Amino acid sequence: MKPVTFNCTVLRDGHQSLAATRMSTEQMLPIAPILDGMGFSALETWGGATIDAGLRFLGELPFDRLDALKKAAPKTPHMMLLRGQNMVGYTNYADDVVEAFIKCSVKHGMNIFRIFDCLNDPRNMETSIRAAKAAGAQAHGTICYTTSPVHNVESFVELGKQIAAMGADAIVLKDMAGLIPPSETFAIVDGLRKAVDIPVWIHTHDTAGLGASTLIAGIDAGAGAVDVSIAPFANGTGQPDCLRMLALLKGNPRCPEYDAEKLVEVQAMLQPIYESLSKFTSHKNEVVDSDTLRYQVPGGMLSNFRTQLQEQGMSDKFDEVFAEIPVVRKALGWIPLVTPTSQIVGVQAMMNVKFGRWKNITPQAADIALGYYGHTPAPVDPDVQKLCAEKMGKEPITCRPADLIKPGMEDLRAKLAAKGLPTDDETCVIYAMFPQQLEDYYNPNKPKPEAPTAKPAPAPASIASIPVTTAGCSAIINGNKMTLNIGGQTHEIVVQEL
Amino acid sequence: MKPVTFNCTVLRDGHQSLAATRMSTEQMLPIAPILDGMGFSALETWGGATIDAGLRFLGELPFDRLDALKKAAPKTPHMMLLRGQNMVGYTNYADDVVEAFIKCSVKHGMNIFRIFDCLNDPRNMETSIRAAKAAGAQAHGTICYTTSPVHNVESFVELGKQIAAMGADAIVLKDMAGLIPPSETFAIVDGLRKAVDIPVWIHTHDTAGLGASTLIAGIDAGAGAVDVSIAPFANGTGQPDCLRMLALLKGNPRCPEYDAEKLVEVQAMLQPIYESLSKFTSHKNEVVDSDTLRYQVPGGMLSNFRTQLQEQGMSDKFDEVFAEIPVVRKALGWIPLVTPTSQIVGVQAMMNVKFGRWKNITPQAADIALGYYGHTPAPVDPDVQKLCAEKMGKEPITCRPADLIKPGMEDLRAKLAAKGLPTDDETCVIYAMFPQQLEDYYNPNKPKPEAPTAKPAPAPASIASIPVTTAGCSAIINGNKMTLNIGGQTHEIVVQEL
Repeated sequence: MKPVTFNCTVLRDGHQSLAATRMSTEQMLPIAPILDGMGFSALETWGGATIDAGLRFLGELPFDRLDALKKAAPKTPHMMLLRGQNMVGYTNYADDVVEAFIKCSVKHGMNIFRIFDCLNDPRNMETSIRAAKAAGAQAHGTICYTTSPVHNVESFVELGKQIAAMGADAIVLKDMAGLIPPSETFAIVDGLRKAVDIPVWIHTHDTAGLGASTLIAGIDAGAGAVDVSIAPFANGTGQPDCLRMLALLKGNPRCPEYDAEKLVEVQAMLQPIYESLSKFTSHKNEVVDSDTLRYQVPGGMLSNFRTQLQEQGMSDKFDEVFAEIPVVRKALGWIPLVTPTSQIVGVQAMMNVKFGRWKNITPQAADIALGYYGHTPAPVDPDVQKLCAEKMGKEPITCRPADLIKPGMEDLRAKLAAKGLPTDDETCVIYAMFPQQLEDYYNPNKPKPEAPTAKPAPAPASIASIPVTTAGCSAIINGNKMTLNIGGQTHEIVVQEL
Repeated sequence: MKPVTFNCTVLRDGHQSLAATRMSTEQMLPIAPILDGMGFSALETWGGATIDAGLRFLGELPFDRLDALKKAAPKTPHMMLLRGQNMVGYTNYADDVVEAFIKCSVKHGMNIFRIFDCLNDPRNMETSIRAAKAAGAQAHGTICYTTSPVHNVESFVELGKQIAAMGADAIVLKDMAGLIPPSETFAIVDGLRKAVDIPVWIHTHDTAGLGASTLIAGIDAGAGAVDVSIAPFANGTGQPDCLRMLALLKGNPRCPEYDAEKLVEVQAMLQPIYESLSKFTSHKNEVVDSDTLRYQVPGGMLSNFRTQLQEQGMSDKFDEVFAEIPVVRKALGWIPLVTPTSQIVGVQAMMNVKFGRWKNITPQAADIALGYYGHTPAPVDPDVQKLCAEKMGKEPITCRPADLIKPGMEDLRAKLAAKGLPTDDETCVIYAMFPQQLEDYYNPNKPKPEAPTAKPAPAPASIASIPVTTAGCSAIINGNKMTLNIGGQTHEIVVQEL
């Protein structure tokens, strides 16, 4: 069996998980070319929360980042996380908007779309998979791992078969909460590999200290590629560090080759960026968050929740609200907890505790109960569904939700034109998801957020690339200065930061 | 194959690795009985650095701690780490002193002696193994894992055979730096299990994020027991957390059963102790110390070293000194790095950089080169050995070093008597290792160190044990107060901290 390959997530999930998605394009640019030369199977550079956060907190236009990163790292395939019919927003969008978003992304350099649905409803991945392939990119269909009485190895393998039948180029096992035990990882990957003939990739988090072992088990079961990041934007709530994975795989017949010295250099370059984002960094002193294991929810949901309960003056209700989460999940058909369902279930659990169970139902929770997010893993509780139908004044549906949404691009374009904003496809698709943020971006009277600008440490690579060993040539390096002697002639060189 | 069992290290290596050995007996006592009821195969409660640190920093007499912990946890076997002929000191001691130390320890309740030698020289474990068995305790012989050109799976298995032939009750694979890759762990444990018919146990650290995976690989290869700790005194530079290991082993046919809810309670009890020791706690923000992988030395050695180099005004020489470590190790016969060799090699590397290679040799390094610590894994560099012999004015030896040490107990007793101190065996053996600290302890004019006294959080168990569900009986719990109604009569009860 061939060596496993690594995807590097540091420019997307690494800082999303460990620094609240606050790394700016400017900070990434000196790192990207080095990563590009390391032989990763993919660089995850875009998608997930980066588009929302970039607009909201950094004043960056999403496609500008993609352009810049693609230019800085043209060799390695770029990869993005896409929430299927939710794109990178929090609700379902029209098929033509999804198609346009994917087409634009490919045009700007995206190569691999990792497509998931928060309910694991394959119908919500259909349009994205088709559009990605039509645009000449790879479509990876994703299984969101979760624990519940209706989820097991067989059900995940069955979902994998459906995803493969939709024409996906690979299947990704996505463990957003870092909860898969190694033995189950092995069983799922092994089951998938026997059931389908496309590669199986793995994405996990080390939140509860299981991530690295999960990856090893998956590699032993034949996973084609796994996601790693680079410290300090690694481990903890992020992906296991690349150097650490290399050490763990030493002696494993599938151990890949990556340049450890170069990784140490990239770590050193990333360090000042990490420190500059200290207000947002989330490594905990305790290293491993065993509460994740206890409550079986993603770490991000836990920390958001503590904040929200505090804001509501409900801090003393933490245990009660968390005990309510499985109640809500069960009533809503044991849906996984991943953006946006993690928020929806969390808020509903809080409401149930605050006002009494199902006394106050959020429109989002009602939409899940009524089928407007898609098919749930188990049937929705009929009483809760009936209650939601009454309260919201609408009927349950069973069709693919996007079938009820009329095409949106022309409407978006008209709205933008009316506001005097650009009307190209790129602006339309971002406007569909983040209208207010985009209007703010173009409003000269709105104060602009300031992106962090702390630079990475200078790359030693810019020095190392000088061939100091050539005959008749010598170099003395002192800090960022170098005295270069070629054929007897001396040149004083200052190595600039990239 | 039977389920693996866990040894709990929180009362010894847990706080030694993560809080500079500062947990006091007073802080441990409320926790010990709970641990005692959890079914661990052993509680590591004593030995290692705890005796030195207890005397030096906490003003505690070592055997008093053992007595107290044994009384608090009488059911589970107590285990200690013993440096073979070095006992819990830093040099070789006479056989009669080692024998007396072990006899006293057994008398005060010690059940399992985990015996290692810093050079992996089995002759330095002989007396301890014999004495432990003679006193009716278990003797576990230990293999110190290290990386070098002369260490490999075969050499470790060969050492295991020698240890088994000496009558050890078990073999422990001790990975003090947290460097064993899982595949090598599997190979060593598997090799040992095929070569010997005594149990193989594993001890590691999660410093570089490998520890948990190492334990899983060892369990898959048939390890009988593995060391875990309890958060927050777990993970990072300590042993993997017990709850985390349970999650990792879910679905593994050898997964043991431990009460997860009780573990959560113990974590909550430990939290205020951990916080009270914040001056000493050593979890790093970066979670995983990949420098350990880079330099292949124990994490504790790295942090000590940074401090020592700073004190010497040599902080800028860090890389140079670290590059010198393999040079020193090679010259000294590729000795493992573990107390006390880690200090000896580190200091010599610093000297070599500061004064020129081998210009200035410490007496300890010279003693290693001359055989006074025992047989080295590879031959000592003959030039370095010659230099050491000249500088120290003594000849190399090849016998078991303790054969040259004359019995010591009567001399120790006479010295103590002359100073008016107690002359029992317990005082003699501690005086052998820590004369100054013991004199200070008994000197009324010396200021006594203050042991930390922050109490553990009250054990919820003390409330939960009231049968609140009995008919005709109700209880309302509010903080540490309880209103108990039995047969219509109300009792106000205050639940005291243990």
